[in-house]
Amino acid sequence: MQKPSLPKGTRDFSPEAMIRRKYIFETIEDVFRLFGYLPLETPAMETLPSLLGKYGEEGDKLLFKVLNSGNFLKNVPAEEINPENTGKLSLLICEKGLRYDLTVPFARYVVQHRNEITFPFKRYQIQPVWRADKPQKGRYREFYQCDVDIIGSNSFLNEAELIEIIDEVCDRLGIRVVIKINNRKILAGIVEMVGLSGMFGTITATLDKLEKIGINGVIDELLARGISPDAIEKLKPVLNIEGDHQTKMNTLKQLLKDSPTGKQGLQKIESLFRILENITLQSEILWEIPLARGLDYYTGTIIEVIALDDRIGSICGGGRYDDLAGIFGMADISGVGISFGAERIYDVMLKLDLFPESAVAGTKLLFVNLGEREENHILPLVSKVRKAGIRAEIYPDHAKLKKQMSFADSKDIPFVALVGEEEISKGIITLRNMQTGEQKEIGMEGLIKQLK
Amino acid sequence: MQKPSLPKGTRDFSPEAMIRRKYIFETIEDVFRLFGYLPLETPAMETLPSLLGKYGEEGDKLLFKVLNSGNFLKNVPAEEINPENTGKLSLLICEKGLRYDLTVPFARYVVQHRNEITFPFKRYQIQPVWRADKPQKGRYREFYQCDVDIIGSNSFLNEAELIEIIDEVCDRLGIRVVIKINNRKILAGIVEMVGLSGMFGTITATLDKLEKIGINGVIDELLARGISPDAIEKLKPVLNIEGDHQTKMNTLKQLLKDSPTGKQGLQKIESLFRILENITLQSEILWEIPLARGLDYYTGTIIEVIALDDRIGSICGGGRYDDLAGIFGMADISGVGISFGAERIYDVMLKLDLFPESAVAGTKLLFVNLGEREENHILPLVSKVRKAGIRAEIYPDHAKLKKQMSFADSKDIPFVALVGEEEISKGIITLRNMQTGEQKEIGMEGLIKQLK
Repeated sequence: MQKPSLPKGTRDFSPEAMIRRKYIFETIEDVFRLFGYLPLETPAMETLPSLLGKYGEEGDKLLFKVLNSGNFLKNVPAEEINPENTGKLSLLICEKGLRYDLTVPFARYVVQHRNEITFPFKRYQIQPVWRADKPQKGRYREFYQCDVDIIGSNSFLNEAELIEIIDEVCDRLGIRVVIKINNRKILAGIVEMVGLSGMFGTITATLDKLEKIGINGVIDELLARGISPDAIEKLKPVLNIEGDHQTKMNTLKQLLKDSPTGKQGLQKIESLFRILENITLQSEILWEIPLARGLDYYTGTIIEVIALDDRIGSICGGGRYDDLAGIFGMADISGVGISFGAERIYDVMLKLDLFPESAVAGTKLLFVNLGEREENHILPLVSKVRKAGIRAEIYPDHAKLKKQMSFADSKDIPFVALVGEEEISKGIITLRNMQTGEQKEIGMEGLIKQLK
Repeated sequence: MQKPSLPKGTRDFSPEAMIRRKYIFETIEDVFRLFGYLPLETPAMETLPSLLGKYGEEGDKLLFKVLNSGNFLKNVPAEEINPENTGKLSLLICEKGLRYDLTVPFARYVVQHRNEITFPFKRYQIQPVWRADKPQKGRYREFYQCDVDIIGSNSFLNEAELIEIIDEVCDRLGIRVVIKINNRKILAGIVEMVGLSGMFGTITATLDKLEKIGINGVIDELLARGISPDAIEKLKPVLNIEGDHQTKMNTLKQLLKDSPTGKQGLQKIESLFRILENITLQSEILWEIPLARGLDYYTGTIIEVIALDDRIGSICGGGRYDDLAGIFGMADISGVGISFGAERIYDVMLKLDLFPESAVAGTKLLFVNLGEREENHILPLVSKVRKAGIRAEIYPDHAKLKKQMSFADSKDIPFVALVGEEEISKGIITLRNMQTGEQKEIGMEGLIKQLK
């Protein structure tokens, strides 16, 4: 007899967790639909050629590969069966892998269905992804992503719309946030200006830590990564930049006056802010110059959302990409998208006690089951209560009353209906409020009215 | 540049398909919740020991195995790397597999969390499963299952409740069905009576085809499978059984009078019918003696649901199992469950045109975007319309009117708001009904009132 267990880094979601997760997903989905986005789903498995090379060398190693069915060694030359080069062998015995994110499958879908799609194409996708990362606190090998993208339009109305979506989702969930934005072209201009265009990744990754490690921390790290003191001197005005949008804009316009890319980036940020002036938002919008985000494929706007009441990192992020679909043979189609971190949102909401009771409630009324005669009398009543839209159960066995009451207790069922000989003859129900312990006799109509 | 494709037997679900699928899942889920069932999710990957041996030898071959990360040959003895025995080798290089159904993961969950669970435990689970079956029309390698089970109670109230759930789901979806029931113990009694207890699987699988191939077809197949003419003679009264419940019951009571198991089965069916008398159902309940269903683990009640208006086979089925959790080391816990075939329900509903228009609608109102000035004027209006709960979009680019109208057309958006110079100065909106072509000038309040 085996002792059951789960693969490392994977989780079961109990009913208690699931109703909370569903509340988050449904809230997000309602907002997506309100803004005209429609759902898409792609298969868990993609062909390995669709996945390989899309997430860098490290990413390739983190793909879960699915073994070919049947005799998987049949067409593999003997010399390839080599414990020294299992990387190559794995590609000969596996042709499928589990998806690593939702962006690459989306790009694959768009290219594959381009002739049926009406552009601009607005879709959302809420599905799990798998990564063979080392599991640790808060990092799992299976987790949900919750992406919303619009592809086929260059307009900043799309960025504005995504920001409005973030604002509406966070407002509905009760999470106070600041929405940080930037544009990668500004960062490209800055890197260009200090004469280090080849080191865009290194420099932006370090700048991104400004808030965390401070100006001196950033300078130390840049030096450690081999950036010259001369170049760092040129970067200092950027590191020291402060003040409102207009001040930042004026400083950067001066700094980037010789960089066409940089100037383009500034224009784009200005356009976005101009549009945002026409939209009423609950959340603060913050232009954060060092904001870069890790993903390689972003080329324009960058968005990152930080919860104000919990130091958990970002709960949503995204940006504009100009050539994502290009990897599948369809160039020049610009898109912009964001992804909500459902796991982090769950943690924040649990910690700040933001789940509304009504949203996570289960059964509202349990009919106690005292015997066969009572059961026959109760069954039509349960149906009637359910027809009225009230979640109701009848205890299935003729168990002791105490056991049935403790069942209601442990399932947090707020009301119990007691129907015995006396209630049957009087044509009433004894309704017990499990929180107060109060009991009263009530008719069916009264009961439905009270519980609805 | 690679041409994108999907793994064999897997599918993308376009927005048009997804909103219909979601309508089915949400309808089913609402009913589950109404009856007090709560959601559960388990990971896509299970350890191979959890999966192997649960679905028969054939099932083991149909499991998708996930290759171990890193050097998967490191600890594999050289003599095991043998193209003649890849079955054994696969278990040395893979420790995980994709789930094959939702029942085994559920049993694993129950055993693993038995100390936190309040029994009877009512859960539902809607997730994809994977099988390396040969793909063919209507058979996929990834498909959703939609299971609802109650575990830890022997009462027939549970069977009755599941039947009521089937009835309510089909009623809400508009699918007319007949709900067939039986009890495996009756079949066991019949097989015992003809003296062939060892051939339960063979005989019931053949009986199950009675409706399809007729009495003579069944007799021929039984002969071909080596059942003696003598035994078949004894089976004939069962094959010829007809009439209402009472007639069937009387015939079988006579036939099974010497089989304790058979008599037990008849008692159980009687108990279930007695309970069902107290419940009002839309669907016909049919006691079908030859009904067996394929799965090995059913030991009692059998349920199968057939759509009346489409010859598509069963759209839901299930039964009672007495020892499912036993495979994970927790015996004597009885459960009963059913599974809705979402893919078939989708096909039936599409064919019979049963999707309500309101349920599968996307965006209700598109604001045409004629230029920057108009855009600035429109943006707060779009927000207002959305705050009223109306799904609305603004076309993101300043494209030609014709292009924007054909965008609305191809996305089936029923209303378009036209706002140009004139509308801005008059403070109104020109609302176009895309179906009738009718246009009228309207204020914001009027518009919201009309579209809500």
